[in-house]
Amino acid sequence: MLEKTTRMNFLFDFYQSLLTPKQKKYMSLYYIDDLSLGEIAEQYSVSRQAVYDNIKRTEAVLEQYEEKLQLFAKFRERKKLIRHIKDLLQRENLAESKKEIERLVEQLENME
Amino acid sequence: MLEKTTRMNFLFDFYQSLLTPKQKKYMSLYYIDDLSLGEIAEQYSVSRQAVYDNIKRTEAVLEQYEEKLQLFAKFRERKKLIRHIKDLLQRENLAESKKEIERLVEQLENME
Repeated sequence: MLEKTTRMNFLFDFYQSLLTPKQKKYMSLYYIDDLSLGEIAEQYSVSRQAVYDNIKRTEAVLEQYEEKLQLFAKFRERKKLIRHIKDLLQRENLAESKKEIERLVEQLENME
Repeated sequence: MLEKTTRMNFLFDFYQSLLTPKQKKYMSLYYIDDLSLGEIAEQYSVSRQAVYDNIKRTEAVLEQYEEKLQLFAKFRERKKLIRHIKDLLQRENLAESKKEIERLVEQLENME
């Protein structure tokens, strides 16, 4: 469940500009502010089921965008490369790591 | 005109997965294969005006996606940082450039 929450937080972060204001609001209250379905329903005077359905639909929409644009997947791949480059920059003998750093920077450049 | 063509090529590259098959087809023939509006119209047995309208609308759709997601803008920013890092890696005394490379890698990491 935590894993799903983290994933939804990221997907929401990447694609929220493509959502409707209502989708954005419910998702933000549920995933960012950590409100329960009941609390959101009360706040908007709608049924708990209506909030649940809306959030489930929005989650599916976010997954569809990710399937098409892969922003989260690419983000994770870039992070991994950058972390690796940062590690190599900390090595004692930088000249020795140069080739490897260059290779990683190249990979980063070709990732788009 | 060339500048606009280049921009549309990039936007199409980034967002084509969000277009309808027809939008994708016309844009690809016009911007990638460099066919004229008349040639596309003939190929699909529609009016030149219909092709023109479709392409204009799709261009606007691509610009709207870019306004929301900024994939092309971020791509250009990343390219600039990467080019700068690559230049620094070519310097004679790598140890001297280390701080600057680290700063740029940090910037790259915080860009998302």
